[in-house]
Amino acid sequence: MSVVAAPGAEYHISDPVQDRRAFRSALGQYGTGVAVITTLNGGLPVGMTVNSFAAVSLDPPLILWSVQNTSGRAPAFVGAQHFAVNVLSADQVDVSRIVASPQGGTGAFEQIEWTEGLAGVPLIEGAIARFECRTYDVLPGGDHQILVGHVERCAVAEGEPLLFVQGGYAASAPFPSSGPGSEATTEETSPESEPAPFAQLVTAVNHRLSREFDEHRSRFGLSAGSSRVLKRLSTGPQTVDELVSSAFLGPQAIEDALSELIEENLVEVTGSGFRQTPQGRTLRRQVAENARRFNEAALSGIPEADVEAAHRVLTALARSDQPIRFHHTKENA
Amino acid sequence: MSVVAAPGAEYHISDPVQDRRAFRSALGQYGTGVAVITTLNGGLPVGMTVNSFAAVSLDPPLILWSVQNTSGRAPAFVGAQHFAVNVLSADQVDVSRIVASPQGGTGAFEQIEWTEGLAGVPLIEGAIARFECRTYDVLPGGDHQILVGHVERCAVAEGEPLLFVQGGYAASAPFPSSGPGSEATTEETSPESEPAPFAQLVTAVNHRLSREFDEHRSRFGLSAGSSRVLKRLSTGPQTVDELVSSAFLGPQAIEDALSELIEENLVEVTGSGFRQTPQGRTLRRQVAENARRFNEAALSGIPEADVEAAHRVLTALARSDQPIRFHHTKENA
Repeated sequence: MSVVAAPGAEYHISDPVQDRRAFRSALGQYGTGVAVITTLNGGLPVGMTVNSFAAVSLDPPLILWSVQNTSGRAPAFVGAQHFAVNVLSADQVDVSRIVASPQGGTGAFEQIEWTEGLAGVPLIEGAIARFECRTYDVLPGGDHQILVGHVERCAVAEGEPLLFVQGGYAASAPFPSSGPGSEATTEETSPESEPAPFAQLVTAVNHRLSREFDEHRSRFGLSAGSSRVLKRLSTGPQTVDELVSSAFLGPQAIEDALSELIEENLVEVTGSGFRQTPQGRTLRRQVAENARRFNEAALSGIPEADVEAAHRVLTALARSDQPIRFHHTKENA
Repeated sequence: MSVVAAPGAEYHISDPVQDRRAFRSALGQYGTGVAVITTLNGGLPVGMTVNSFAAVSLDPPLILWSVQNTSGRAPAFVGAQHFAVNVLSADQVDVSRIVASPQGGTGAFEQIEWTEGLAGVPLIEGAIARFECRTYDVLPGGDHQILVGHVERCAVAEGEPLLFVQGGYAASAPFPSSGPGSEATTEETSPESEPAPFAQLVTAVNHRLSREFDEHRSRFGLSAGSSRVLKRLSTGPQTVDELVSSAFLGPQAIEDALSELIEENLVEVTGSGFRQTPQGRTLRRQVAENARRFNEAALSGIPEADVEAAHRVLTALARSDQPIRFHHTKENA
């Protein structure tokens, strides 16, 4: 791996044949949604969690996704006449995990809500989009096969999508110029100097702090995934399965992060899983200390009493589990 | 279009052949990154902005994307021996737009920074991942062709990805349990009752407010895109091009939103573009009024002095254009 200094960005360049982890990490830079593909296999429901879904054609309406040749579930999908694509909502991390687990193929359908669609193919409740497809083509794609589906019926429901970004689950954030608060600006009457609505401010501040913090984190030479895994191991050793549930990362990302951390001597294998080395503990403390300083620096120059009050307001909003209710001026007809 | 009531979600079901807009809107529920594909055409650089990129295979390393048959730029890509995929960062909305514009094919390269990669193919500076490919296969995909690339070299740079979600540009938001603030929690020593770090609170509150507000917005029967476009027209008529720059939405999403708004008699065509109808103005005022009430309801029960102080703190943080600086305990070796 070589590093090329360029204006504004340093690139880590790799040969994807020699360094698969670098290739996966590059692929992970392209954010995706998360879809569960479903079909029937000998009359039983079977599913697969994927992030290789893509739109292909409007006329005819075609979509595609890819399945690994060596996957035990591949024959069920490659041989199927019909399948469905269920685009998961931000509430469905659990569905993604249950279907992705080794036992998830058919057993998953006892744990998730679903109904029967065209040709009896299972449709997952709560998905924000569903595409019921007839298999249109199966194309060669190296160690995967590319399944092209002809969409016979599609459905949309309201909701935010679940995303998979840089190896971890994420939600989407509207750009600071949009978002909940911005709706409240009545452009006709509000001069620029009028205070911005609260929700819009929160979105803008969140955007700024997240980006700046990422820059600081990267100085430790840890990827976001490795940093997250190292943090999770602060409370004691964990297995890969435990990390998958606690770190909001996929199994592949956890394994890549662990390999990186072990190589850098920050994590070691123990009988019951993985644990921080003394160096890992030291680095983790430094990251935490820098995060504390980051928060402090961000707020420096602002009167302490204001900061304390802001803390109280945000804590109240973050902890509340009451839906926000008010009288609507218009209901949907 | 029919509506099926299901536990928790209402689905709008469509035939994608009859209702292309509904099909596009369903496809938009699956979030994607944004990639610029580049190649040489008669020695000149040419580019295309796409969100159909997908990973295919690790061994051999393959990726794919799709190009519309009728695109003027299709022959350059279908006939090319080499091309590159440049995954855009959240800072590169402009690059996405410049390349996507009708003049963007070759002219774009006078406005963006690039270097020459393998076989002279342009590589976009600032991209957070780049895949330099040899064309491996061109597969049929209805009104598109599926281009499969064999990755000869890949590169990663630090940075957040640009996303395209529900027809608009977006950034990713870590789940509330991760993010900048969470790094500051030293699990070994901090009981749950200790105040959460500021940045973590901001992320959690942003997440909650965004989701709750989406639910309220949907009661007006407007998609997020239509709502955004209707708002942009509050200051006067705009053309599609003006809306593309002001609304953070792609041209297709703008056109879909305008069709929806015109059908509902909320927007009308004028000599210089599109403008709100009287009904559109009324609905827009109601949406703004509800957003105001939403902000008010969210903060109700919190002492007014605290809310004012929180407002001051967030405004200071949102307006600052100074990078957050502090002394790092460790620099990257």
